[in-house]
Amino acid sequence: MRGFLIALMLVVAFMAGGMTCGTTQAIAGDHPEKDPAHVLTPEEFEATRQVYFDRCAGCHGVLRKGATGPNLTPEKMIPKGNKKLRDMLWYGTAKGMPGWGKMGVMTAEETDLMVKYMYNEPPVPPQWDMTAIKDSWKLIIPPKKRPSKPEHNRDVDNFFGVVLRDAGQVCIIDGDTKEVISTVDSGYAVHILRMSASGRYCYSIGRDGKATMIDMWMKKPETVAEVRCSLDARSIDVSKFKGYEDKYAVVGGYWPPQIIVLDGNTLEPIKLVSTLSYTYDTEEFHPEPRVASIVASHTAPEWVLNIKETGQIWLYDYSDVSNPSIKMFEAERFLHDGGWDASKRYFLVAANARNKISIIDVVDRKFIANVDTKGTKPHPGRGANWVDPEFGPVWATGHIGDDVISIIGTDPEGHPENAFKMVAKVQALSSGNLFIKTHPKSKWVWVDHPVSKKEKNRTTLGVFDKANIKAGIFKTVKVADYGKAVHMEYNKAGDEIWVSIWGNLGDADKGKAGEIVVIDDATMKIKTRIPNLLTPTGKFNVYNTVRDLY
Amino acid sequence: MRGFLIALMLVVAFMAGGMTCGTTQAIAGDHPEKDPAHVLTPEEFEATRQVYFDRCAGCHGVLRKGATGPNLTPEKMIPKGNKKLRDMLWYGTAKGMPGWGKMGVMTAEETDLMVKYMYNEPPVPPQWDMTAIKDSWKLIIPPKKRPSKPEHNRDVDNFFGVVLRDAGQVCIIDGDTKEVISTVDSGYAVHILRMSASGRYCYSIGRDGKATMIDMWMKKPETVAEVRCSLDARSIDVSKFKGYEDKYAVVGGYWPPQIIVLDGNTLEPIKLVSTLSYTYDTEEFHPEPRVASIVASHTAPEWVLNIKETGQIWLYDYSDVSNPSIKMFEAERFLHDGGWDASKRYFLVAANARNKISIIDVVDRKFIANVDTKGTKPHPGRGANWVDPEFGPVWATGHIGDDVISIIGTDPEGHPENAFKMVAKVQALSSGNLFIKTHPKSKWVWVDHPVSKKEKNRTTLGVFDKANIKAGIFKTVKVADYGKAVHMEYNKAGDEIWVSIWGNLGDADKGKAGEIVVIDDATMKIKTRIPNLLTPTGKFNVYNTVRDLY
Repeated sequence: MRGFLIALMLVVAFMAGGMTCGTTQAIAGDHPEKDPAHVLTPEEFEATRQVYFDRCAGCHGVLRKGATGPNLTPEKMIPKGNKKLRDMLWYGTAKGMPGWGKMGVMTAEETDLMVKYMYNEPPVPPQWDMTAIKDSWKLIIPPKKRPSKPEHNRDVDNFFGVVLRDAGQVCIIDGDTKEVISTVDSGYAVHILRMSASGRYCYSIGRDGKATMIDMWMKKPETVAEVRCSLDARSIDVSKFKGYEDKYAVVGGYWPPQIIVLDGNTLEPIKLVSTLSYTYDTEEFHPEPRVASIVASHTAPEWVLNIKETGQIWLYDYSDVSNPSIKMFEAERFLHDGGWDASKRYFLVAANARNKISIIDVVDRKFIANVDTKGTKPHPGRGANWVDPEFGPVWATGHIGDDVISIIGTDPEGHPENAFKMVAKVQALSSGNLFIKTHPKSKWVWVDHPVSKKEKNRTTLGVFDKANIKAGIFKTVKVADYGKAVHMEYNKAGDEIWVSIWGNLGDADKGKAGEIVVIDDATMKIKTRIPNLLTPTGKFNVYNTVRDLY
Repeated sequence: MRGFLIALMLVVAFMAGGMTCGTTQAIAGDHPEKDPAHVLTPEEFEATRQVYFDRCAGCHGVLRKGATGPNLTPEKMIPKGNKKLRDMLWYGTAKGMPGWGKMGVMTAEETDLMVKYMYNEPPVPPQWDMTAIKDSWKLIIPPKKRPSKPEHNRDVDNFFGVVLRDAGQVCIIDGDTKEVISTVDSGYAVHILRMSASGRYCYSIGRDGKATMIDMWMKKPETVAEVRCSLDARSIDVSKFKGYEDKYAVVGGYWPPQIIVLDGNTLEPIKLVSTLSYTYDTEEFHPEPRVASIVASHTAPEWVLNIKETGQIWLYDYSDVSNPSIKMFEAERFLHDGGWDASKRYFLVAANARNKISIIDVVDRKFIANVDTKGTKPHPGRGANWVDPEFGPVWATGHIGDDVISIIGTDPEGHPENAFKMVAKVQALSSGNLFIKTHPKSKWVWVDHPVSKKEKNRTTLGVFDKANIKAGIFKTVKVADYGKAVHMEYNKAGDEIWVSIWGNLGDADKGKAGEIVVIDDATMKIKTRIPNLLTPTGKFNVYNTVRDLY
């Protein structure tokens, strides 16, 4: 009998933005007309809600209304029935759903509970607005108590920030000596790091929305400030335009769907902007338009924010940060990750569920094109730029769902015939690619395959020759005998490429933690390994990240 | 037992944007733990919901979370108890709540039901997005079937569009002959009219969100297109910047809270933008940030949109209409109505529940100030501009809650000492003012008092002398012996001022319909009356409206 009142409270609380996490449990045991076989205890509901948040929400959304993956609301799930749902969860699907059971990520019991969870309404997540954000803000070391110059003789520009995903930590590695000089706690499962424009600070953003900043001038770099910006987030960047160096940081919220602007020196929250609006094409209201990647412009005081579900690219002018001007481009739905062309004029971003690359011109402030990559689920990271002898300046992406690299011309003045068109589609070693990487000083383009269906490809990198990209793979480099090789980054000099080996001590990783493998870029030989890192993931070299060299 | 499922459906439907009005009834009879004395039948609930929408939502919001009036959610209402609630509804309050019973607007039975309604959760209103908007669009006479030049020899520039509020109609009156040349159906209780930049079309917006456009070149002007833009709306304007004449119209939604851009020639819907975001000051999420007044800039392809609950003024750049750039100013909460200074560079808008006038500079794109008007509930309409012999160019507003006119300097170059400050506070005849009006060619400033507590003031206008404003009222002009005198407008020549007499055939109006009283501006004598108009409200002269002369 209490169900109605509780549910109404949820409605009201959602509208009021005042609900706390705890109320999600109230839904669980109190669903009078549900098939008894679908009822979860409050404890089961909460545990499964967490598994859903960790494994499923990224593709399907916290509201389960679908994004990269399909809609999972009860009216869609109930007709499928137990067996089909369980099989999809356990074995995955041909369309790209991972086999969570088969991969050893979800237990049999968790899988059974997730089937039941699919029959239940998604709990309405709470708001998280300025009061909560401010309450979470911790200025651990105020600016005036920080060093006035570096306390070490290391080259900060060749530091790497490395995400230790399952440890909930970030470590700082000296790229010259390969020493781990500091390991600090971060948000949960950090998704990305960025460096301040001066190169002094390293910012992280956790999946739990917690942002942290590390001062790399300290003898042992430490976290100097933290703030929980949202309950779920994926992106952070800084103000890079001349005159705004180290002034602001910006976080993109997944839930609540919002933009959070922070003071770049303290992480003090300054401004909140909601991304709630309408899908660009059908103009339906979307309750969860998540902020995917963010990049800072080099040519204006602006951030490029990619609003996934509504398919809009926003340019946020931070020159008057609390009174922003926001240019909203209609682009394509399910915008995910992307980066600059070499000139920093064109921004290219994958609309991954639509197999498109959306391109804007930030100088003329124009949408340019949605380019079909002729592959399934492009996932460029920030992509790779080089000058092709035939096509001129190009940018490339690999794919999660196809074994192809798609190459797009980016030079409308010198090579108008190729500009913003697919100029080549090159055979890769495997599907299951996540990142592609090069450096202006390198002859090569490196491609990983950590989610390849074939185990051996997961630890093999494909190397392509910029001088002859159409010839296909120039060489393959096997970098580990366990885990997955994921995400490459160059050192400052551009003569070493670092790749993470994703190990998390589990059976699938032969009981090993992960490591970073350092490869000599010229010879493609392994130079050294930096061992004992728990699921090292993204690595960000200060010099290259500040300058967006890729 | 079904309550929980229904309520969950409401949550989900709200999130999905797919709920229909009918489901609001489902809440009514199904509130198991409610005090039986608070239970409404579905029919009573629906009827009372409509009364609430008509009489209460304007000030308190459809979600009852408060705006100009306070929050009316059950947790605030239940502690008050039946008697207090009923007295407030019947007799009104000192803070400005009208005495709906005493005024004869709500019956005793309606008042009792409204008390019960206050104990019930507000129904969650449905979404109304592009599919619904497009489905409602009717192009009654396509542009190519319309006349290519005026079909009459009348001076369209001296036409008046007049809202016949309770008739759900708009009439077009020839300002030269005073003939009603056409009366057409409109949305419900039209709130405002605007004229296209060419002066050919008259646009209306109903409280029910229905926009209509009338072609005044037709021999008998008729509605050529209509579209329901939202379920509740208050504002419409057009593209006035050079090169965009008659190209676009824009509607401000109250619920859903959204901006709807329309083709100016057909009302075909083009673009939807949500206004959901955070209050400018505390940065709390607000579920209902309504679009109050809209004005078109003369100096850029922009609309100024006033977002009431979040206290933001938005500049929507329509030069790339589907990819807008929106400049968002932090201003003050509860923005309502406002207008331009005489130079059209500064926009001044009342934050009525905060007793402030918020001012922006649309040329330098800067927020200037929140000026305290030293009066309760400023309500300028579009305000009144003139050149004061002492203070230079000024803009003025009256107040609903105080008998004062507040005058603000608007000339930072010529009179910097007065700019954007209260330069004078002048005694008016009465509180209960809604509109203030002048014309560049007039010597006077006219002030109405339709919601004065004293009946005789409701039909008396106060006239002030621009040459000696500080002397106070120069003259009073009694314009009717029934109803309320509301909203003045000048003719094209600026030598007549028209005022509406609000009569609706009810007892309070002595059984009379309303009329328009035409006054000779120079002599202040009544020239003529245009009779038998049901609650005529806003009147808009084509020439003055296109040019924003006030």
